[in-house]
Amino acid sequence: MKFIVKKEILMESLNNTARAISTKNLIPILTGIKFELKKEGLYLYASDTDVSIRTFISADKLTCIEEGSIVIGGKYIVEIVKKLPNTDITMEVIDGYKLIISTDNTEFNLNGINPNEFPNLDLDETKEPIVIHNNVFKDIVNQTVFATSQNESRPLLTGINFRIINGELEVLATDSYRLARKLVTIDKEGDSDINIVIPGKNLLELVKMIDDNGTIEMHLFSNKILFKYENMIFLSRLLSGTYPTTSSIIPNSFNIELECNFSDLFNMIDRASLLTSDREKNTIKLSLDKNKLMISSNSPEIGKVEEKIEVISDKKIDISFSAKFMLDAIKSFNQDKILICMNNDSSPIVIKSQKDPSLIQLVLPIKTS
Amino acid sequence: MKFIVKKEILMESLNNTARAISTKNLIPILTGIKFELKKEGLYLYASDTDVSIRTFISADKLTCIEEGSIVIGGKYIVEIVKKLPNTDITMEVIDGYKLIISTDNTEFNLNGINPNEFPNLDLDETKEPIVIHNNVFKDIVNQTVFATSQNESRPLLTGINFRIINGELEVLATDSYRLARKLVTIDKEGDSDINIVIPGKNLLELVKMIDDNGTIEMHLFSNKILFKYENMIFLSRLLSGTYPTTSSIIPNSFNIELECNFSDLFNMIDRASLLTSDREKNTIKLSLDKNKLMISSNSPEIGKVEEKIEVISDKKIDISFSAKFMLDAIKSFNQDKILICMNNDSSPIVIKSQKDPSLIQLVLPIKTS
Repeated sequence: MKFIVKKEILMESLNNTARAISTKNLIPILTGIKFELKKEGLYLYASDTDVSIRTFISADKLTCIEEGSIVIGGKYIVEIVKKLPNTDITMEVIDGYKLIISTDNTEFNLNGINPNEFPNLDLDETKEPIVIHNNVFKDIVNQTVFATSQNESRPLLTGINFRIINGELEVLATDSYRLARKLVTIDKEGDSDINIVIPGKNLLELVKMIDDNGTIEMHLFSNKILFKYENMIFLSRLLSGTYPTTSSIIPNSFNIELECNFSDLFNMIDRASLLTSDREKNTIKLSLDKNKLMISSNSPEIGKVEEKIEVISDKKIDISFSAKFMLDAIKSFNQDKILICMNNDSSPIVIKSQKDPSLIQLVLPIKTS
Repeated sequence: MKFIVKKEILMESLNNTARAISTKNLIPILTGIKFELKKEGLYLYASDTDVSIRTFISADKLTCIEEGSIVIGGKYIVEIVKKLPNTDITMEVIDGYKLIISTDNTEFNLNGINPNEFPNLDLDETKEPIVIHNNVFKDIVNQTVFATSQNESRPLLTGINFRIINGELEVLATDSYRLARKLVTIDKEGDSDINIVIPGKNLLELVKMIDDNGTIEMHLFSNKILFKYENMIFLSRLLSGTYPTTSSIIPNSFNIELECNFSDLFNMIDRASLLTSDREKNTIKLSLDKNKLMISSNSPEIGKVEEKIEVISDKKIDISFSAKFMLDAIKSFNQDKILICMNNDSSPIVIKSQKDPSLIQLVLPIKTS
């Protein structure tokens, strides 16, 4: 293997590929990145068995001198290329599995591994894809992923549920105390309905790599999902099991629909969250009475706080909830105005926005007495 | 105590004062900030016994309604004020030791502590000060502090040595493997000579607070040093003991004086440091021969690296040293060109710059065979 490539081009590809390398990987070959130079260009592979990534630099962006392949320690190759000057880099395999990385004044000589030891990642299979705009895909993930569970004792809830029914994609995340739901119309025709669960952390890695423009393809299989984006393929395993049915939890109607200014409400809750008696749940209280909305909290040792604003509502309610969950929910709306919808102090609180009906957030109240 | 003040003004003062609050403080009253409102303005105090800070907001920057004082949990008060809107804040002590913090829509009610329990910090003593420009003072600290020891087993070496002899301030730091020395001419007349050791971490906190313009006063006592800067007093305890004499370690003449471009040399060493066999010492090798400077390192399992540039020198040497220490030393110069001065492979390496003779850095070589 021998080729010459500009540093920036190689760096971008390496950075994206390296996201699949886990630092805790117990399989030595999987701490490496596989380089495979073919006539059409350079493929880079990495995998931690949970996620596999392939990036590609096409032949017109490099000078291919001799085809070939090698596996090289991922941590080192990324650090080395990052610190090289912005110039042409030559990479050459010599003496079996040694990789020479050189520029005008610099020569690295790295011990590599036989590329045949690298597992076959099976990234070439395709299905009829679902195509989604990057912006929409990023919203789907960013507006739901925070509501997944961090608790590995219920692994299914650490994932995000993607369901397709009659051309509509429903995306759900819940940790059983709160829930995020996003609906997206897609152009996939007919086919059987789909119901899968993708690990939330994998989707978070994926959205870090994609730009605002263009589209991303989803290729669905029974035990994996392939995302294709520009010159990259991103494979994630799926979580197995039946995701809980949550539709009955979301109330259809509300006694109280309170329109609030996004930043007013966010700042009030954010301040009140400073003084809560239960650090973990972060419980604060919302009280509505005579066109006054009050957010309050109380920590006996430290003190208490009361926040008041005028609102348009003659309804009355006292309801407690986790400040952190409510802040996460509010933050997911990119809107000036949001609606806080409630029935009573023991029924779920639903947060939505009139401008963007595709998204709802639900937070369960906390019983305080 | 009751006053009204703009959020930004209070915030700046609180942020600076809070630097003296240690999170590990075992004395409960010292986790607090003392507010003391007098006719002339508001004093804020904090101390972790190692460092004490007093900041001051003069009466013309606030509305004083009633003099008084209180101690309030430092962590909470800083977080609360940070999250308040940019507006006027009213602070009032009620019912003994309760502090009400209010804006138009917000009211915090915090449990405070009797201010008489707060220790007397003794910040009003003064001596004839040594006055130094802020820029010079920041250089003094930033160009030496990294060479202090992080090892508490030799506490004196965790400090920076300030000596004044005949109107010249000599500032020294060493961890016994490297040394940084800065010389500054000061305008202090006569007096007896001075030789003190100030904890390095305290000086680092102090330089974070000071701007580039203006001057800082140093008031020296036998067991403490007071810095006065704008509306702030910063007290640091001194380390006791006799700082080692280091002048005999610094060679007076050199066989080899190699002029290098700052960024070339830095980048070469930085890259070579990626592949060193001893992670901790980070040993790399410098070889000079026939106008060629080579920086190299070797990690048997991972690989090796060689960096070469042309230099003007017909001398010959092979010498090994810690890449990390050499990078720290080089970084401390704000110059394009630096001089690497050597005698032989077991004699100290001295780094200096022709443009700034006030600073020298010394790094001991490492014996590799």
